Amino acid sequence: MTDYRRLRVALLGAGAVGSHVADLLLRHGDELADRAGARLELAGIAVRDVDAPRDVELPRELYTTDVEPLITGADIVIELMGGIEPARSHILLGLGSGADVVTANKALLATHGPEVFEAADRVGASVYYEAAAAGAIPIIRPLRDSLAGDRVVRIMGIVNGTTNYILDRMDSEGADFADVLADAQRLGYAEADPTADVEGYDAAQKAAILASLAFHTTVPLDAVHREGITGITADMIEEARDAGLVIKLLAVCERLREDDGESISVRVYPALVPREHPLASVHGANNAVFVEAEAAGSLMFYGAGAGGVQTASAVLGDVVSAARRHMAGGTGVGESTRANLPIVSIGHVVTRYQITLEVADQQGVLATIALLLSQGGVSIATLVQTPLTPANGRRGTARLIIGTHRAADSALSAAVDRLTASDVVEQVVSVLRVEGE
Amino acid sequence: MTDYRRLRVALLGAGAVGSHVADLLLRHGDELADRAGARLELAGIAVRDVDAPRDVELPRELYTTDVEPLITGADIVIELMGGIEPARSHILLGLGSGADVVTANKALLATHGPEVFEAADRVGASVYYEAAAAGAIPIIRPLRDSLAGDRVVRIMGIVNGTTNYILDRMDSEGADFADVLADAQRLGYAEADPTADVEGYDAAQKAAILASLAFHTTVPLDAVHREGITGITADMIEEARDAGLVIKLLAVCERLREDDGESISVRVYPALVPREHPLASVHGANNAVFVEAEAAGSLMFYGAGAGGVQTASAVLGDVVSAARRHMAGGTGVGESTRANLPIVSIGHVVTRYQITLEVADQQGVLATIALLLSQGGVSIATLVQTPLTPANGRRGTARLIIGTHRAADSALSAAVDRLTASDVVEQVVSVLRVEGE
Repeated sequence: MTDYRRLRVALLGAGAVGSHVADLLLRHGDELADRAGARLELAGIAVRDVDAPRDVELPRELYTTDVEPLITGADIVIELMGGIEPARSHILLGLGSGADVVTANKALLATHGPEVFEAADRVGASVYYEAAAAGAIPIIRPLRDSLAGDRVVRIMGIVNGTTNYILDRMDSEGADFADVLADAQRLGYAEADPTADVEGYDAAQKAAILASLAFHTTVPLDAVHREGITGITADMIEEARDAGLVIKLLAVCERLREDDGESISVRVYPALVPREHPLASVHGANNAVFVEAEAAGSLMFYGAGAGGVQTASAVLGDVVSAARRHMAGGTGVGESTRANLPIVSIGHVVTRYQITLEVADQQGVLATIALLLSQGGVSIATLVQTPLTPANGRRGTARLIIGTHRAADSALSAAVDRLTASDVVEQVVSVLRVEGE
Repeated sequence: MTDYRRLRVALLGAGAVGSHVADLLLRHGDELADRAGARLELAGIAVRDVDAPRDVELPRELYTTDVEPLITGADIVIELMGGIEPARSHILLGLGSGADVVTANKALLATHGPEVFEAADRVGASVYYEAAAAGAIPIIRPLRDSLAGDRVVRIMGIVNGTTNYILDRMDSEGADFADVLADAQRLGYAEADPTADVEGYDAAQKAAILASLAFHTTVPLDAVHREGITGITADMIEEARDAGLVIKLLAVCERLREDDGESISVRVYPALVPREHPLASVHGANNAVFVEAEAAGSLMFYGAGAGGVQTASAVLGDVVSAARRHMAGGTGVGESTRANLPIVSIGHVVTRYQITLEVADQQGVLATIALLLSQGGVSIATLVQTPLTPANGRRGTARLIIGTHRAADSALSAAVDRLTASDVVEQVVSVLRVEGE
């Protein structure tokens, strides 16, 4: 066994991910040393309660509540506590005392990323966060390094496993949102309070991180347009299927080119995706990130988006990278945000809408609706009209599924407002954007 | 515009990839400088003939036949000449004079990788080769860095676009190998001499590179078992489809666990893959690498496996990485081959076979065949017997499709030999391995 230099690793947090990270560090010590060129010595695990039950059994003497000396004595700090504080202060303390930092904390990076990266730059340290964006899927290095010589045009990501699990089961079983959510909670795929997942907050944090990397631009979380999936019904999914589409919660990061220069859009919403698109075959709680770049063309990265041991793999990859950098010497490579492209609001985004209406089944309705749409510069691409029989609706009404041509979201949204206000429209049943065509 | 330090870049080769690399370096200079933290100055392009026609128009004064001073004066050498010599000597000269090297040369890395990596280690330089394994798909960094803390169990890769294009068209059109190959040659998907692709040599080189990285083991090219696709017929593909399978040329890199320790197997052959496996949906000339790791679970990386501008994207990502390393200082991170696992021959590999036979349609045939198989420790998992009518075969024979249970390849292969020699077997129509179940 080679006699490697020892690097002291401080682990903050022993939850689902942290306990697996500690376990793998201990069990695969020799192998990791060979790969890193240094022995990764787990100096301690900072926890709130030393006696709390854990997912994985670890030597009791590793646990400590005395977090500051653990951090300041470490070469590498792994932050897996989550949340903003005290995670932020701990990371800054680690960087300030010369450690490299590995974190999976998407909430922190999406809100305090620039502060953390600047602190690292000041001391020439590095921050690694492969686990923050799509669990075990290697997406950070591909975007930051492999595509660094290319220009990313668009990212479409299924980056939240809970919502993909729910939508996929709704799609395969014809089930309702509430029923599948309840079942997902029972099975542990969704949390007791599912808000962060189903309202798209988690996906929005990841979208901010991915867009920052892809477009070399600081993307504040509040610049990410966000819509959740709570309004998605079994009917909408069935209608999508009939049209050869599937509903996915997408994080879309897009480079826009207008006459006055480039800008970007970052948005999270449920969208209709053609069934033949690679993202349509991402089932269950899996994640996938579809990247379109000017030179590389279309790429897709697929895998487990969550899970303790899966995410631990991404964290450990970062730990080995940090150790190799320590041994190689030199400063860390900072984040590049020099492009600093303007971020446009959702109104500027150009997409297609699919609008489902219930309308009065009478002469002239189509002309009225076409007029209402065209007044705002929205034109109809496809139209399917189904008279509603008494069995599935009120007599005298018809269902109208309108696919629009591409238009600015502000125009589409205003057109939907006009439809809602119109006398001939009984109900705007659903409005969904179409992506990936 | 920030006043960056200049790094001199020498480009060797101006073919389909090289000309796009030069073009992007020149066109995106400012953007690349912001990302790399250094201005990438294209010092020259070494070519055999300054006046030869090129894919992309570039300033004529960049071309030179005087390659040595170009190399020794460079901070970063990009080798895109292909072949062993003079590429090898040029790379060693570059490393020896303190440059980092970027290469897409899979033939060189698969045969002289250790020599090149040792030369880099000696001077603390780095060798980058993202473009050598699956074109534009970021797979090298994920394996070397993102999965460095995990244990790869298996890689199954579609790493040759030409053969995937041919097999995919045979599958979708029911066409014969020779016809599709001729068409692929006409369309530029296959070369005039298609041997390197259709006989699996290209895939074997990539398999050696991927397995070396994944298992931290030097994998010599001659340790890679290799079979091509020239024996695949329209009938075999139709039979596969009827059974819910598709034939793909796979590069399989596998970690084997036996009582006496771990070993690895690296092999390239056409295999039957279930249609629901993610690799089955990789169409046309695309590539995909499916990775199973102990902690991370299943990952897939998908994209364009070839093409000048696509591959140029991977090369430029490496150039930016090399530039960042130059600016950060420190030594390069070498390849880790410390695990150095033994590589077993194909006979030790455990898979399932699907064997298609034409047999005498008479009493007792099944018993004879089951006996012949079981004598070598091979047992039958599935069996479909179809009497052949005069329309599709000789009277008095039947077609038998046998799916075996998993067994060592040596046992399966010996069993097929016994079948071939048997009186009741008119013809062994096809023998294929099944992967990805």
